[in-house]
Amino acid sequence: MKFLRPKKKRIYLDYAATTPVRQRVIDAMRPFLRRQFANPSAIHKEGVRARDAVQDARESVGRLLKARPEHVYFTGSGTESNNIAILGTIEARRKQGVAYSDMEVISTPLEHPSVSKTLEHLQSLGVTVHFLEVSSEGLVVIESLEQLLSPKTALVTFAYVNSEIGVVQEVGKIARTVKAHEKRHDVRTYVHTDAAQAPLWLSCELDRLMVDMLSLDAGKCYGPKGVGVLVSRHGVRLSPVVYGGPQEGGLRPATENVAGIVGAAEALRVAQVHREARVQKTTELRNFTIDALLKIEGVVLNGSREHRVANNVNISIAGIDSEFAVVVLDEKGIACSTKSACSGAGGGGSSVVMAISKDEARANSSIRFTFGEETTHTEIRRAVAALQQHVQKIQKFDF
Amino acid sequence: MKFLRPKKKRIYLDYAATTPVRQRVIDAMRPFLRRQFANPSAIHKEGVRARDAVQDARESVGRLLKARPEHVYFTGSGTESNNIAILGTIEARRKQGVAYSDMEVISTPLEHPSVSKTLEHLQSLGVTVHFLEVSSEGLVVIESLEQLLSPKTALVTFAYVNSEIGVVQEVGKIARTVKAHEKRHDVRTYVHTDAAQAPLWLSCELDRLMVDMLSLDAGKCYGPKGVGVLVSRHGVRLSPVVYGGPQEGGLRPATENVAGIVGAAEALRVAQVHREARVQKTTELRNFTIDALLKIEGVVLNGSREHRVANNVNISIAGIDSEFAVVVLDEKGIACSTKSACSGAGGGGSSVVMAISKDEARANSSIRFTFGEETTHTEIRRAVAALQQHVQKIQKFDF
Repeated sequence: MKFLRPKKKRIYLDYAATTPVRQRVIDAMRPFLRRQFANPSAIHKEGVRARDAVQDARESVGRLLKARPEHVYFTGSGTESNNIAILGTIEARRKQGVAYSDMEVISTPLEHPSVSKTLEHLQSLGVTVHFLEVSSEGLVVIESLEQLLSPKTALVTFAYVNSEIGVVQEVGKIARTVKAHEKRHDVRTYVHTDAAQAPLWLSCELDRLMVDMLSLDAGKCYGPKGVGVLVSRHGVRLSPVVYGGPQEGGLRPATENVAGIVGAAEALRVAQVHREARVQKTTELRNFTIDALLKIEGVVLNGSREHRVANNVNISIAGIDSEFAVVVLDEKGIACSTKSACSGAGGGGSSVVMAISKDEARANSSIRFTFGEETTHTEIRRAVAALQQHVQKIQKFDF
Repeated sequence: MKFLRPKKKRIYLDYAATTPVRQRVIDAMRPFLRRQFANPSAIHKEGVRARDAVQDARESVGRLLKARPEHVYFTGSGTESNNIAILGTIEARRKQGVAYSDMEVISTPLEHPSVSKTLEHLQSLGVTVHFLEVSSEGLVVIESLEQLLSPKTALVTFAYVNSEIGVVQEVGKIARTVKAHEKRHDVRTYVHTDAAQAPLWLSCELDRLMVDMLSLDAGKCYGPKGVGVLVSRHGVRLSPVVYGGPQEGGLRPATENVAGIVGAAEALRVAQVHREARVQKTTELRNFTIDALLKIEGVVLNGSREHRVANNVNISIAGIDSEFAVVVLDEKGIACSTKSACSGAGGGGSSVVMAISKDEARANSSIRFTFGEETTHTEIRRAVAALQQHVQKIQKFDF
């Protein structure tokens, strides 16, 4: 009888797609919905209070990421932050008289659509986009960066943590290579990193990373959806991609989403400040998961094991249709994914796994498990067992 | 003694700048922050539930505004909606091979910065922008529209309700004039209206207004800040202004702000459905206010009294510095404004009042009171008395 079998709690292993909002983040946001709801641009006391809340959030994020508060821009998403960093760099130079055809951008073949589609748009305008060589581990080959850099290079952009395979780029090495190039040619080449998958697991301090710009998304680190952050170093010139009022230094007009901004700042604070214990616990879980999965016949790990974010496991299983596997796991109560959510459901394998492996079968059979603070050993064991069961069933039919 | 004088409740009369979030909107949003927090693009059950919530919101807004659900786009702000409508129209035509120099846009000198600054950007690209003549009442002069329309006109864009002076344009007349032009020249000229100030007070149905596109902002009608809406008629071709994933039909990429979208749909529903009683009550309040203010020496009403939204009173008072007046009123517990919040604090008078009056003294002395559902006769009487007191004081010193 139904009521005698309690429904098993679902196991959510798709934290890279998005996280829940932390309770303390909700608590921080609440006052700004109904009580202190005013427009931060208004000159009356209610407006001033809202403006102060936004300014406090800006200063908090600035302290956290070692940027000046006036170089912390709140946007509507990580996607928008990436667009402003990339298009904004190119448009600012165009306005200074540089032709599109005299500008180049260097990126990787592993980027999220918010970067790769923006680069396609730049190409349609006449900007040259070069793609770095990446190793089979998913790491940028520094020699290829050295070869591609030219005095025309306006921007080098890449993800700090790859959203599909969890590979952590050697940001310092990349940035130092660009800095050396700048010095050699007396040019200014911005380095931008999409750090959307980083703040819970890695330091996002601008000076430590030596990058000029860094994008974040509150919805990926226990903050509200619909709020992104872009931070830049002093002296970085950007143009807006959307036009309107003077908010966010004119770079991102629109009435400030006060509650969302306050929530984003709180989410980022907790993400960065309480990082160590979280990383340690989750790294253990991840290693346990990788080891357990590698025991299943045909399983290979996608991306470096060493240069890998604490919460990502991405595997391929020869002969397994990964979309079907994800659906079967879903039926068994486990939520995971085949690739990044923004790459769209359906249609083709993972372009990221394809780029590092050049192996279509592998790209078509990738499965991503990403963990959160709540993820437990018990959940992992159930997920691994469920996948093993599915694989054995398929392999029995196939062979 | 202080505790014997209870602090008087503040009087907020700046609802055009932004509204609080309705409690039932917060209630509708809450489940999507922690419980049903998944990414709508994910293929697992959690993702499907989030996708269903977004789809329900889209259908609700579609029914309300008489648009097909697939032509309801959720954005990050009213500003972004206006940008997509305007830049999106021009970029879509450019991609079809029309040169910037072969496109024209018609607007008014009364627009919000999210429109006027976007038009400036278009001008910098080589698009010709014409500005309609407006009467001293703030209404578009239809004859000037007839004169400015040309086969090159890609778009006519204007605010349904002016955010500063509350004038309601004769949208039907404007749209019919454009439709007649389209037929005569066998061309396609889009009509877009920024309806951010409308949904609580006026019907926003696309077919009734006969416009091709309409922008809304949830934060101006008791919904959450950080969510805009753009609806379009079937057949309207737009390009995105930000690039990334396939969300919102590819027109507005980024992980959907599920809670915000659900909240925006609920806010718009309540705004449109329960309109009549709200309009009746508030129109009475507005008329009472206008009559009371006009009794103060030197007060003139800015904008048409007849073609005016229910919740807006905008006056000028000869010889009064309006910014100082707003600060004095603020000290007396009353929050109002000089112009639109997005036009920035400080710096110059109202460009809207200047455009209709051609009178600098009048533009420098404009004060805007905008009402919400909560506004009472008692509050209005206190506000009028406070202003009267201030004006008399100033006039006594001056003369």
